[in-house]
Amino acid sequence: MAITIEQLQSARRRLAGAVRCTPLLSAPALDALAGRRVLVKAECLQITGSFKLRGAWAALSALPAEVRVHGVVAYSSGNHAQAVAYAARCFGVPAVIVMPADAPALKIDRTRALGAEVVLYDRATTVRETLGESLCAERGMTLIKPYDAVETIAGQGSVGLELVEQLADVGVDNADVLVCCGGGGLAAGIATAFAHLAPGLRVRPCEPAGFDDTARSLAAGTWLENAAGVESLCDALLTPTPGALTLPVLLAHAGPGLVVSDQDCLRAMAAAATTLKLVLEPGGAAALAAALSSDADLDSDPVVVIASGGNVDPALLARALSLPAG
Amino acid sequence: MAITIEQLQSARRRLAGAVRCTPLLSAPALDALAGRRVLVKAECLQITGSFKLRGAWAALSALPAEVRVHGVVAYSSGNHAQAVAYAARCFGVPAVIVMPADAPALKIDRTRALGAEVVLYDRATTVRETLGESLCAERGMTLIKPYDAVETIAGQGSVGLELVEQLADVGVDNADVLVCCGGGGLAAGIATAFAHLAPGLRVRPCEPAGFDDTARSLAAGTWLENAAGVESLCDALLTPTPGALTLPVLLAHAGPGLVVSDQDCLRAMAAAATTLKLVLEPGGAAALAAALSSDADLDSDPVVVIASGGNVDPALLARALSLPAG
Repeated sequence: MAITIEQLQSARRRLAGAVRCTPLLSAPALDALAGRRVLVKAECLQITGSFKLRGAWAALSALPAEVRVHGVVAYSSGNHAQAVAYAARCFGVPAVIVMPADAPALKIDRTRALGAEVVLYDRATTVRETLGESLCAERGMTLIKPYDAVETIAGQGSVGLELVEQLADVGVDNADVLVCCGGGGLAAGIATAFAHLAPGLRVRPCEPAGFDDTARSLAAGTWLENAAGVESLCDALLTPTPGALTLPVLLAHAGPGLVVSDQDCLRAMAAAATTLKLVLEPGGAAALAAALSSDADLDSDPVVVIASGGNVDPALLARALSLPAG
Repeated sequence: MAITIEQLQSARRRLAGAVRCTPLLSAPALDALAGRRVLVKAECLQITGSFKLRGAWAALSALPAEVRVHGVVAYSSGNHAQAVAYAARCFGVPAVIVMPADAPALKIDRTRALGAEVVLYDRATTVRETLGESLCAERGMTLIKPYDAVETIAGQGSVGLELVEQLADVGVDNADVLVCCGGGGLAAGIATAFAHLAPGLRVRPCEPAGFDDTARSLAAGTWLENAAGVESLCDALLTPTPGALTLPVLLAHAGPGLVVSDQDCLRAMAAAATTLKLVLEPGGAAALAAALSSDADLDSDPVVVIASGGNVDPALLARALSLPAG
């Protein structure tokens, strides 16, 4: 296996005291909506508002101090950006976040507020990977990848280690565990934990329609890409194809994938707010959307859901809240 | 003291496995808004969406089984109602909930969904205490008071017992602890825990403008009432005067009180959603509103906030989210 259980356990030890063990929540009204018991691990309550801090912290803490001191680079305008900026600030090392010049001012401001240097680029004329690599070369900084790196996956896998214990506490050792999936780092990390520690728990990756590269790749047994020109509100999950490291793990230990619509995600955001009192972003609500969907091919009761992030524009949350319930 | 630490500890033992130990949360962006570190105990994540389950469970679990079996009655605008309904369902006994006809629809619906019989009354023409007592007499049921009862206060005090441990874990033993205050059961329970276990922690009751009976009663040293005809969005905090049991505890161990506007509470709801990813109701956000107010007379850093409930109608949350930040 690409990622070992020892790597997960080592990452978890480094995360102790730095990231939150997020609670496993439930609500009678949510169970009623889903028609079964739903247990929700609230990673939106993680510091910086998403699970991404786990992987970022694992990656930064794994760097030799003499390497880390020169700083880190990340490309992202979203959850990974905030996670890397926050972790770098805690380690007292510089962070450069490469963001498109037309990114929302709020996201740029929030990343700067966490102490990061934001380098803006023009989407039309610059390839961000090239810019990132030249920054690393010029300044001696280290690139922190968002999902396709061993330490990042090991860090995200700490969600799975916690979940095994939290589910054992409530007597659950056999269930589908619905995981929001972009590049697959979270799903692969959790699947690794389950494969070793709780084989009755099974990761079901959840993706937005049009970005179901993981579901199709799992079915095909190899990397497939999404069609160009599709859009989704799930900005955290818009990767073109599964990671080189993540897909083999998922093929061995996860699936089949589940696919939800943007409208499903908005309704799940409303359900999370009214029943669990949690704010989710569309991509962070994809797994809950699958749990609430009557179409989803789910046999388990209870079903377990990872609510992976809550960094949503207030206007979009308000739009979700205006939808009729149910 | 009216309530002993032994009563709190006994209540906490009965609550184990039935109520959640809610997390202590924080967010860099919230600290930036407040201009100081803010630690938030998220009681909105409690089962039924507010701290009220603690008091309800403590009260029901303290009843002799042969009394409890005949059922319980509660009067409540909503959070105590849901808590008593849920606890009664868990104990397998009937519950009748007396609610004002103008309570939020969500709270009425949820109370019915929890299996309780709901009796609606008109705030303007009916004294709810009289209605509740007559229901008890007719049906042989036991009244579960929302705040002015020893076991209820002891149950709410479990928030304080948890908080003493959670704050010790992060090295905080000296701080103002801002507590949303209606009848004062939560504030009195927490203050009792602090008086015995953490004298450096001080409860500061937080109330909506026009319903600052506790703040004024604390200043006067005796029970004062609110003027009639005032309204507030903080439906959970609209009590006429402090409890007979709660005010003496608060006079001995808490204060001074803090007063916030409805607009402050709506802004705090928006801040909780965007920074902590928590849904709060207006009354549940009163303490956070005080922490974010530049007027509030607060010296401590960090300041601790109890986010006491999250049962808000979606339209009102959407309204809060539409307010400008800051």
